[in-house]
Amino acid sequence: MQIAIARGTVVSSQKLPSMTGVKLLLVQFVDEQGQPIPRYEVAADRVGAGLDEWVLISRRAIAPHPEGSEHRPIDAMVIGIIDTVSVDNGLLYSKKEEYRYR
Amino acid sequence: MQIAIARGTVVSSQKLPSMTGVKLLLVQFVDEQGQPIPRYEVAADRVGAGLDEWVLISRRAIAPHPEGSEHRPIDAMVIGIIDTVSVDNGLLYSKKEEYRYR
Amino acid sequence: MQIAIARGTVVSSQKLPSMTGVKLLLVQFVDEQGQPIPRYEVAADRVGAGLDEWVLISRRAIAPHPEGSEHRPIDAMVIGIIDTVSVDNGLLYSKKEEYRYR
Amino acid sequence: MQIAIARGTVVSSQKLPSMTGVKLLLVQFVDEQGQPIPRYEVAADRVGAGLDEWVLISRRAIAPHPEGSEHRPIDAMVIGIIDTVSVDNGLLYSKKEEYRYR
Amino acid sequence: MQIAIARGTVVSSQKLPSMTGVKLLLVQFVDEQGQPIPRYEVAADRVGAGLDEWVLISRRAIAPHPEGSEHRPIDAMVIGIIDTVSVDNGLLYSKKEEYRYR
Repeated sequence: MQIAIARGTVVSSQKLPSMTGVKLLLVQFVDEQGQPIPRYEVAADRVGAGLDEWVLISRRAIAPHPEGSEHRPIDAMVIGIIDTVSVDNGLLYSKKEEYRYR
Repeated sequence: MQIAIARGTVVSSQKLPSMTGVKLLLVQFVDEQGQPIPRYEVAADRVGAGLDEWVLISRRAIAPHPEGSEHRPIDAMVIGIIDTVSVDNGLLYSKKEEYRYR
Repeated sequence: MQIAIARGTVVSSQKLPSMTGVKLLLVQFVDEQGQPIPRYEVAADRVGAGLDEWVLISRRAIAPHPEGSEHRPIDAMVIGIIDTVSVDNGLLYSKKEEYRYR
Repeated sequence: MQIAIARGTVVSSQKLPSMTGVKLLLVQFVDEQGQPIPRYEVAADRVGAGLDEWVLISRRAIAPHPEGSEHRPIDAMVIGIIDTVSVDNGLLYSKKEEYRYR
Repeated sequence: MQIAIARGTVVSSQKLPSMTGVKLLLVQFVDEQGQPIPRYEVAADRVGAGLDEWVLISRRAIAPHPEGSEHRPIDAMVIGIIDTVSVDNGLLYSKKEEYRYR
């Protein structure tokens, strides 16, 4: 998985029927030091992430099929809102403190 | 998923039988600021995208199998025509307005 | 899918049994302007592509299993021989004319 | 698979239900000479890796489903703690010796 | 698939049970001219490749499940030992001759 920041939303009304009801977030990836890098993904969100929150992105994921056997062509999902990222026993990010330590 | 602009078409008559009837679009990716970058994909289109429209591309997607159990070797699909892309509460792209805000 | 040019062949006699009878082509990718780039793939070919022909390559593809449930560890296939590539209403490539327009 | 060094942990409490109980490690990849490179992955860990240990990372992996048919959207896993890496008949890394030879 | 040179081995004793008995090779990729590039993969080997041999690597491959329904989190496999690579009707590599033509 990769760490990203929720930056925006993408809206599409003319789409595959299986994509109906899927909320799409534009997320920007961060590097291993917590800095945003010029790479993004449009990810399906089912955890309710808000703008500027750090999220965990799974790509190449097979999306769960809540309606049985339907296949959704989703290749990136927000699978969690990040509370903390710790590196070398130091905090790189903490949602509670609302700031980064670097 | 990634955001791309429909730029052209690819035609192949000598192909795997499972590819029959698949419309192929050449799409060029844009970066997180909406600028075209030198990377493209040939994507199967089932939503009827037109040239210059912004589309949502799913890669690594397993294509739906409308004719039952047939496996199609499709690794990129147009899964939606984009109406709007919003970043940091500003519009990056709007199909209706037919222009980009940056 | 990506566009590539058939450049050569790869022969392997000591291989996994499931790879028996699979013809392997070395294909070189082209960029969105039709120029060869320094990236290649060894792709399974079942459409009979010839050297110098432009082909459509699917990666991450699950190969069809002609002999029932056998799994073949193929991650790239030639899925079609390209007739034409059109970009911005101009021809980028035409097999019939045997030349590129750029 | 790729070789990486366990650098930290990622905690997420608001997440997809299927991610409950999954320990997440932040691992940094090394190059073919054993040097850390600026690329990381957040990987599920079920082998109990400790900080600074070299681990083997599988991406694009379909995670085992210990609770039956549940699908977990995990795209990177720690599949082993590395004892030794040998290149050209020399040791690049040995966990026991706790140092690298280059 | 990609072409690589077998460079070394990776040993892991503390690993997922499904990885037991899997031989792991460190392979270094070559470019389309047969030159080694600074990218490697740790690949499962079931064809018995030796050091310095050119091998064919499949990534994103679903590994065969010799023991029934067991899922192995393997994302790269040696699927064949290469005899010859021919490009533009010239030999780029021949195992028998034990040299490269470029």
